[in-house]
This record gives sequence, structure tokens and C-alpha cells, in this order.
Amino acid sequence: MAKDLQADYQAAGFGGALPLGSKPALVIIDFVRAYLDRESPLYAGVEDALADCVRLLGAARNAGIPVLHTNVSFTPGGVDGGVFFRKVAALRAFERGSPMGAFAKGLEPLDSEPVITKQYASAFFGTSLASTLTSLGVDTLLIAGLSTSGCIRASAVDAVQYGFIPVVVREAVGDRDPGPHEANLFDLQAKYAEVKSLADVEAYLAALPN
Amino acid sequence: MAKDLQADYQAAGFGGALPLGSKPALVIIDFVRAYLDRESPLYAGVEDALADCVRLLGAARNAGIPVLHTNVSFTPGGVDGGVFFRKVAALRAFERGSPMGAFAKGLEPLDSEPVITKQYASAFFGTSLASTLTSLGVDTLLIAGLSTSGCIRASAVDAVQYGFIPVVVREAVGDRDPGPHEANLFDLQAKYAEVKSLADVEAYLAALPN
Amino acid sequence: MAKDLQADYQAAGFGGALPLGSKPALVIIDFVRAYLDRESPLYAGVEDALADCVRLLGAARNAGIPVLHTNVSFTPGGVDGGVFFRKVAALRAFERGSPMGAFAKGLEPLDSEPVITKQYASAFFGTSLASTLTSLGVDTLLIAGLSTSGCIRASAVDAVQYGFIPVVVREAVGDRDPGPHEANLFDLQAKYAEVKSLADVEAYLAALPN
Amino acid sequence: MAKDLQADYQAAGFGGALPLGSKPALVIIDFVRAYLDRESPLYAGVEDALADCVRLLGAARNAGIPVLHTNVSFTPGGVDGGVFFRKVAALRAFERGSPMGAFAKGLEPLDSEPVITKQYASAFFGTSLASTLTSLGVDTLLIAGLSTSGCIRASAVDAVQYGFIPVVVREAVGDRDPGPHEANLFDLQAKYAEVKSLADVEAYLAALPN
Repeated sequence: MAKDLQADYQAAGFGGALPLGSKPALVIIDFVRAYLDRESPLYAGVEDALADCVRLLGAARNAGIPVLHTNVSFTPGGVDGGVFFRKVAALRAFERGSPMGAFAKGLEPLDSEPVITKQYASAFFGTSLASTLTSLGVDTLLIAGLSTSGCIRASAVDAVQYGFIPVVVREAVGDRDPGPHEANLFDLQAKYAEVKSLADVEAYLAALPN
Repeated sequence: MAKDLQADYQAAGFGGALPLGSKPALVIIDFVRAYLDRESPLYAGVEDALADCVRLLGAARNAGIPVLHTNVSFTPGGVDGGVFFRKVAALRAFERGSPMGAFAKGLEPLDSEPVITKQYASAFFGTSLASTLTSLGVDTLLIAGLSTSGCIRASAVDAVQYGFIPVVVREAVGDRDPGPHEANLFDLQAKYAEVKSLADVEAYLAALPN
Repeated sequence: MAKDLQADYQAAGFGGALPLGSKPALVIIDFVRAYLDRESPLYAGVEDALADCVRLLGAARNAGIPVLHTNVSFTPGGVDGGVFFRKVAALRAFERGSPMGAFAKGLEPLDSEPVITKQYASAFFGTSLASTLTSLGVDTLLIAGLSTSGCIRASAVDAVQYGFIPVVVREAVGDRDPGPHEANLFDLQAKYAEVKSLADVEAYLAALPN
Repeated sequence: MAKDLQADYQAAGFGGALPLGSKPALVIIDFVRAYLDRESPLYAGVEDALADCVRLLGAARNAGIPVLHTNVSFTPGGVDGGVFFRKVAALRAFERGSPMGAFAKGLEPLDSEPVITKQYASAFFGTSLASTLTSLGVDTLLIAGLSTSGCIRASAVDAVQYGFIPVVVREAVGDRDPGPHEANLFDLQAKYAEVKSLADVEAYLAALPN
């Protein structure tokens, strides 16, 4: 992004930095085979993000914070995908029972980690995610997964709307094209979230009180 | 309910009748084994309601209206049940994989009928039910299932809040005790919903334009 | 309520007691002139509840916990009241600008206390209440106001659904008729909330850590 | 946007076109003085969008479709703005009573048109907008106002999530900087909405059945 865009935003009162809280959770959004299988139309070339997300998941489990996972599933025919399913042909990959919905290797949920099955872009929309986080006393939501310009953006916007401090972990989110990836990280940092490096997030997790 | 309670409510401006719409759907709420198995602590003695619900489901499918089903499932340990799971010990019957969550005989969903898996009382809470109904152009929601003082009440209140005309089908809802059953039907008719007999609903479905 | 109803509920796994949290807030729901003016069709005879609610508000402000207030307002004609406004003729008292929407004497909000203007029964529905509470780190919601069988019930059910521990303050809620009042307190204690005396809540507030 | 980005998206199954419905409504989002007054830090240079929005409003009223307006208001101190208010210093312009919240000239609401006062980016979040639209039988939501990369994007994403066909009226939305404006219109057309010219929308409104 050009320097003057940053300057213009700063003058207007955007881009402020939120201090992170003391009760984080991690949500990994839609890191499933549809984006990783080279035969899939949704294949996104996000192998690097996967490796970093696996590392992030390990750090979160080590720190003992709550970990949640989302996937996508539609009734055959997609009636429960509503207008979104009609708009985006690619969503047919997620009809119930499709192998494309399987979690990536290294990101399989533990039995005690909630799997949130969603139909829409935001991990909060039509799910009980906000309730789970609130009932756990969570104040900060680490966000990883796919894709930056879609479900990550929508989930981070909802995170701040629902009252959580959203932290988008830069290396652990990915997108099929660099333009929308960077444009959305810019918007997120400007208005809704803290975009942090994996190293910074690892240091934050390591420093949490027990 | 005493006559004078009805009179008092009418004078205050409650109890009005909503004309039903032309685009109904049916949702069957939590009609699962936990309430039907005599060994289950939640056994509710609702065999009559089951028979009438099966009859209602047949009428809805004959009329070609959308049919949706809900059940309940929690991550083992219940973290995604939040405060509700801590409050109600009976909800442990619905940890993932429990046989108590199986649909009642005669009420098994068809492949094309959405199954909405919920964690809370209202069928709308933490689910995409409202979106599915809105995207289908539904204006009226026929409500059946269990239990009147719990999930039926909560779902009917949310139905009117989300913009649908709620119709509670009297014989096709049930509760473990008659006091709360009748008290909640009274509140629902007074403020939120139309409580209708199965015969009236069957006549309504039969008269729908094709 | 009959003894055997209590026993039946206990055997089924209802009626458990939630320990209260350390970060409460108070919400006072719809304690407005429509229910207090003897000329209003909604007049409910809730002068005692008003006095106790004023006392509760004082205790909450003394304890320094967040206090929020709700009222009701509709666009003239009620289009933003949707199906609920069509159902309940009494809601016309709350068209924008009506004097019936004024807060009760002794319950006027301070400038810094949010006033949540709602259109539906639940104080959470179509409002940002849950977000405000979550962003404040609130874990427990003290609920007072009107009426037990309407907005109190709906708000307490939503409170537990959104992840808060709902505490209904018995003397500070009211209803026009004793039957629905008691029936709803029974359901609330059984499944959704802690129904506590004002004295117990005052003791709880006094014992909060600073 | 580069040609190959379009091609890449099409191959993946994005960018499909939704046919518009027969029951539209118009929502005008946050077209208020804060963005129009040259002394305001939020001044965005959107005079052209204002002129086109006034024209669109006239066409909508002529067609007799529902029209809704949003503005933003926070309790002094911003406690009801939660984490969002802490993140974006610019939001202080919308504390209750600020002159910056006044509607733009030519866009003043009629008495019967709902004004939705919101605290967050999406016009749906923490408001009863979805309920109003559903209860009116609306299937298509025309979206105008400010700003493309903020409240327009968030509202359009929520519109499709809630079950409506979102139509972003290209000339009637605006943003302080062209980069985020175009990047967000690209994402919206790709995944969530129909981005249409004002001329196309006027033709659509003129052709509606009475």
C-alpha cells in the first residue's frame, strides 16, 4: 500500500492499535482439503500458511488456551446456504459428505475442541461461537485459516462487533491471490483488527500468565 | 387459565390473532430419543405428540412446503454449551455421539431437508435457520416438537422476533408436565404466536395455492 | 407450584444452581410510564417492584458495576416492529415520541449509562447489548424490570444463550397477573437463570472485590 | 483489477450473477455530516456519491419500495461501542448529540421510514434491520452510502448471510480513497453481492410490478 494511503488513514483516525487481552482463544477457519488439493477448483496454493498454522496450533495448545475449528457443510442442494450458495458456485464443494471438507493434515481437532460447522463466510454467523467465547471469559481471538479476503475478513469484522479483540496472524492466513490478500489485511488493520506476525503471537502466548 | 386472566389480557391489548401467510415452512424441534426412551431421565411421556407430529410431517411433505429438523449436540465436556450446559445437568444426554440424540421413528429427515444442530433452547440461536427461511421467502413457521416450556417457547419467541408468523401446533408439541405446558401455550398465544389445532393446520396446508 | 413438579424436574436434571461470577452488570428492562400510569391499558400495578428496582439500582451504582437501561420505540406505523407489532396491539403505546416510553421516576439513566432502544421482547434481540457486556468482560447479568412473562423471560433466556449467568431479581421484576409471573419464574429457575431475592443480590454486590 | 485476477476467480467458481428479486428495499448507510463537512477528520470527498444517492432515493420513493436509513450513535465515552470504539478513534465523532451525525441534505428520512441507529460497521449488527426486511417480505436489498471499505462491505456481507440479495449501487457508495473502494467492490461482486450501476438500478425499479 502506498505511504500516502497510510498517512491519510492515520489523519482520519484509523489504524489505532488495541492492546491484547489476557484471555485469548484460537480459531482456525476452514483449513480444509478443498483449498489444498490440486485437483480442486478452490486450490489456493497455501502450503506455507498451512505449515505456519500448524506451528501456531502447537503454540496455542502448549499455552493451554481454548482452540476452536470451523468447517463448512451444506445440505445436499444447498438450501441451507441460501443466497450465498446461489451466488458462489464454488460452495458446491462443501455439500454434506464431500471429501473436500476434511481438515488439513496437522490441523485435526482434538475431541475436546469444538468444531463449528458453518454455512456462511463469518465464523460467527449462524453459529454459537460468540457464546462459547463469552462463556469462557475470552477477550482476544487469534484468527488463522482461509481465506483472507473471504472468511477471515468476515470473521475478524464480526469478532470486533461481538466484543472481542481480533488478532489476525499474518503468516497463518492465506488467499489464492496476493492483491485481495494484502488489500484485506490493510482494511483489517485500519478498522477492525490487529494484524500480527506469527513470531509476535508466539511471544504473546509464551508470556501469558498461567 | 381463569376467565379473568383472558379478560385482563384482552383489555391490555394482548392476544390478537395474526392471519397466516402464504409461504409456510415446518420446523420439528428436538423430537429425539432422549424424550422417548423410558430409561432416559428426560423421558417425557409424549407418545401422543409424536403420533400427531408424524401426521403433521406427512401433511407438510404432501403440501410441498420446506421441512427442517433440529437436534442438539455438544462437544464432549460441553464447552460449546456454555452457561446453559453448566445450568442444566440433563443436557449431558446430548454430548456428541450419544444415542439419545437420534430422531424419533417416523420423523427421520429426508436427505434434502436441513438438519439444524443447535446448542441452545431456541432453534434460531446460533444457527442459520432464519437465513434459510428468509432466503426461501417463508413468511409463516409451523412449529412442532419438544418441549413446550423450553425449546418450543424459545423458538416461537425468536420466530416472531426474526419476522416470521409463528404457528404452534397444539397436539404436536409436548412437555413432561401439564402445568408448564399450558402456562407456556397461554403466554405464546397472548404475545408471540398463533396456537392452532392440528386439524386447523391441516386445513390450512390443504388450502395453500400450488 | 406443587411439590411434585419440583421433584419431577430435579429427577430429570433441571433446576441446578449456577455460582455467580465476579463481573456483574445490571440491566433494567422497560421500566417505563406505560406500565405505571393508571390511564394506560398496560398499567400493571407494579409500584412495589418499582420501589425495589430503585433500591437495586442504588446498590449497583454503589458497587460501581455497569448499569444499562432498555426502552422500546417504534417508527410511526410500526414497520420496524414487524410481526410482533401486528400481533400485540398494546405496542402502539411505544410509537416514537409517545410519553408512555418515559423512564420511571428514580430510574432515570445517567449520561454514561447506555440506553438500549429495542423493538422486540428480548433486550438482546436487535441490539448491541451482548457486545457491550462481552467487551466489558461481564460474566453475570442482573435482570430487573418488566414484565416477567414477557421481556424478562425473553431477556433471561437470551442472556444464558449469549454466555452470561442470568440473575433475575425476584422483587425487582413484575407482571400484571400473578399466574404468569410465578409460572415464568419457575421456568427461569428450572432451565435458564438464578432467581434471587433482592437481599441476596445486595449481599452479593456488597461482597464484590473492588 | 488485472484481467488474470478475474480469470482466476471465474475458474474457481466465484463472481456468479444473482438474478434480482421482485421485492426490493433500499437502505442508505451512514450518509451523515461527518463525511461531508470539510472540517471533519472523516471528510471523504463524496459529493458525487451524495448527488447520486439523492437521485436513487427519489427513484426508490417513486417506486414505492421500503426505504430505511442508518446512522451511528454512541453513549458518551463509547462504552456501547465496545472494542470497535477503542480501535477507531474516528468514531468519537458519533458520541450522542454530536452534530456530525446529522443526515446529509436531500437524504432526510420521512417519518414513516425507519432510522436504524447502529454502533458497529454492519447495518445488520446489533439492529433489527433483518427482522424488518423479513417481516416485509423483502428479497433484495439495494445498498447505498458510506463507506465502501467499511460499513458498505460489512452490510453487504451480512445481507447475503441473512438471506437477502445484496445490490451495491456503484455510484451511490463512496470511500475516502480509491484503492480500498475498488478492492472492496471487487470482493463484493466476486463473493457476496451484485455491484450495479445507478442506471441499471433505476431501470430495475421502473420495471417492478405494482
